Amino acid sequence: MADGSRTTEARRDAVFGRWVVFSPARSRRPTDLKSHNPTTNPNPGLGGADAPKPSCPFCAGRESECAPEIFRVPPAAAPEASPWRIRVIENLYPALRRDMEPPAPQDGGAKEEEESVPGELVVRGFGFHDVVIETPRHDVRLWDLDAEGVRDVLLAYAARVRQLEEHPAVKYVQVFKNHGASAGASMAHSHSQMLGTPFVPPSITTRLNCMKEVFEKLGNCSLCEIKSKETLISDTPNFSAIVPFAASYPFEIWIIPRQHISYFHEIDQDKALDLGSLLKTMLQKLCKQLNDPPFNFMIHSAPFGLSSSCLPYAHWFLQIVPQLSVVGGFEIGSGCYINPVFPEDAAKILRELDCS
Amino acid sequence: MADGSRTTEARRDAVFGRWVVFSPARSRRPTDLKSHNPTTNPNPGLGGADAPKPSCPFCAGRESECAPEIFRVPPAAAPEASPWRIRVIENLYPALRRDMEPPAPQDGGAKEEEESVPGELVVRGFGFHDVVIETPRHDVRLWDLDAEGVRDVLLAYAARVRQLEEHPAVKYVQVFKNHGASAGASMAHSHSQMLGTPFVPPSITTRLNCMKEVFEKLGNCSLCEIKSKETLISDTPNFSAIVPFAASYPFEIWIIPRQHISYFHEIDQDKALDLGSLLKTMLQKLCKQLNDPPFNFMIHSAPFGLSSSCLPYAHWFLQIVPQLSVVGGFEIGSGCYINPVFPEDAAKILRELDCS
Ligand SMILES: Nc1ncnc2c1ncn2[C@@H]1O[C@H](COP(=O)(O)OP(=O)(O)O[C@H]2O[C@H](CO)[C@@H](O)[C@H](O)[C@H]2O)[C@@H](O)[C@H]1O
Ligand SMILES: Nc1ncnc2c1ncn2[C@@H]1O[C@H](COP(=O)(O)OP(=O)(O)O[C@H]2O[C@H](CO)[C@@H](O)[C@H](O)[C@H]2O)[C@@H](O)[C@H]1O
Repeated sequence: MADGSRTTEARRDAVFGRWVVFSPARSRRPTDLKSHNPTTNPNPGLGGADAPKPSCPFCAGRESECAPEIFRVPPAAAPEASPWRIRVIENLYPALRRDMEPPAPQDGGAKEEEESVPGELVVRGFGFHDVVIETPRHDVRLWDLDAEGVRDVLLAYAARVRQLEEHPAVKYVQVFKNHGASAGASMAHSHSQMLGTPFVPPSITTRLNCMKEVFEKLGNCSLCEIKSKETLISDTPNFSAIVPFAASYPFEIWIIPRQHISYFHEIDQDKALDLGSLLKTMLQKLCKQLNDPPFNFMIHSAPFGLSSSCLPYAHWFLQIVPQLSVVGGFEIGSGCYINPVFPEDAAKILRELDCS
Repeated sequence: MADGSRTTEARRDAVFGRWVVFSPARSRRPTDLKSHNPTTNPNPGLGGADAPKPSCPFCAGRESECAPEIFRVPPAAAPEASPWRIRVIENLYPALRRDMEPPAPQDGGAKEEEESVPGELVVRGFGFHDVVIETPRHDVRLWDLDAEGVRDVLLAYAARVRQLEEHPAVKYVQVFKNHGASAGASMAHSHSQMLGTPFVPPSITTRLNCMKEVFEKLGNCSLCEIKSKETLISDTPNFSAIVPFAASYPFEIWIIPRQHISYFHEIDQDKALDLGSLLKTMLQKLCKQLNDPPFNFMIHSAPFGLSSSCLPYAHWFLQIVPQLSVVGGFEIGSGCYINPVFPEDAAKILRELDCS
């Protein structure tokens, strides 16, 4: 089972401060790693049949079966009256609810419960939970769109985040995509989601604290410092795609703006096209190398209204994680992941893979 | 879909400092929640056939197909020469390796890589990865054993942790169990595992920091402070089983020593019997209520050699998490979980469920 070329080691990264155990003996050779749960679409690609799937509310023509629309691309003169390429809609089963009274902005609305343990906080479930339908067609995946199409999805995220930023009680927006059932997706039609929360979620706090510590030691941002050629997959004028030094998941990819920028939602048209093209390529590579695996991607941005002293170490990036195995009790208990594939090996495989 | 009895809220707990969104609208009624991936054993219970499963190396009679034994219960005069109820063995595919040179104890062996980003650490993959085979029989689950049988498994964990504590380079031991494929188990035969790590894993650091903060505000330990009747499932002279205030997973259970104790491995025979009996009951309840769900349990103890000033806020406990749904991009990105079942509702259901 073992790949003898590298020996087991543990690494801690400079962004989340997480320890990861790299253990090639736990898996076959990195090139043999494939998904056992491919998400294969019966009619993949733009060449497939154009018929909407009978029961899918995200397909064109079924807009009335969805929760209310927020906006569409291209914009509609009258709502629901024009053809569309992208729709941003409310989530029908929202985890946080826009119809609840927002907490008072000054205290974040969190209160220590009267009879509870100090340190326990409760906040009303106010927030925004939206869905981005990335295409009207059931048989098209995000990376089947051309670079301009992916750009427009990214610009739709950014436009919606900017709207949510206006709300004084929203502290952070988590943009994410689930693809495939083992990555949590309950809907097969290509989509992503975002949640605007009335608190700063724990991983964001941990990440900023860790990056701050590095900044204080080094005088520079952890992500600006990454220069390793060995973990680079590809770069463009504005972005680098790498396998992070202490990747938690095999074949995990980070797409990082090369310039130091704290907020994703400030992205402009040109950079969004550049990112769209790189994201498309990375998803194609994962699909080809790993047998159309389930995956998640997440945009890691900064909380709204970050003080100017924090901006120098807050650097946004997009993380893609293929889901090739199930997390077990060790990871849940310790927060430490076991990854059978060394980042340098994954990066080399992905770098050399031709998807053109 | 909605259960109208409670409205959405977010809670942050006083142990891990994690935010959890409680969203009853995301699920059916709590009582309807069942596992879609039951781990059902073809011959469950002690009444089943006694035949070992042909290819299972954990079954009695196949000891030679396993990695080396560390000890067995009852102890063997000559190794591999006597019948056994429990075996503690080396993991054949260890994530961390006992045959590597341990890092020097004084610096934890972690070094900042020459050309890497400050904050990035690397440590050789030294450590211990053991498997505890809980029964010689393929058809017996942990909760099919009697309370004395579960006690002996717990005492075997504790005995092995005490051995690992002797090693100066081992900083923490994570004891955990994976049951069912969706909880990560690759072996069906009832077993648990432990990993002795040369670093303190991230969740342990976060937990102790969070409990310290509460202690500094309150002068008491977060777990000693839990007194809510509403989230209590059951208690015994020495332990309480509760659904935590900000449970990340539906029907998550914590079993907490009622006395303030920092280290699991100091447990004695009497307390281990008490815990064994309560653990058995809790696993029976989960099995009955949730249709034999996949689950993990993890023992959260303190790192070795904790300074005496930290002991007042370090309190060990055992966490059980049924795996009823797949985690998605929101949880991976934000560290914040969405739980459709309020702890008070889960506790009431489990409290009232009769498993006798
Ligand atoms: N007609 C309609 N109109 C509007 N919206 C509709 C709709 N029909 C369905 N939806 C919504 O569309 C979303 C589709 O999302 P996904 O398939 O990415 O995963 P889901 O949110 O179900 O859960 C996954 O992601 C979350 C967050 O990471 C995890 O908590 C969870 O365990 C995991 O399975 C759902 O949230 C659903 O509520
Ligand atoms: N003959 C033999 N002798 C000795 N040992 C043997 C053996 N045959 C198998 N083993 C070991 O027995 C263990 C059984 O463990 P589990 O079934 O609980 O999950 P596993 O560790 O495979 O992975 C799950 O748990 C880990 C840790 O949480 C996650 O990283 C992973 O994704 C998840 O699937 C394996 O670690 C295996 O190496």
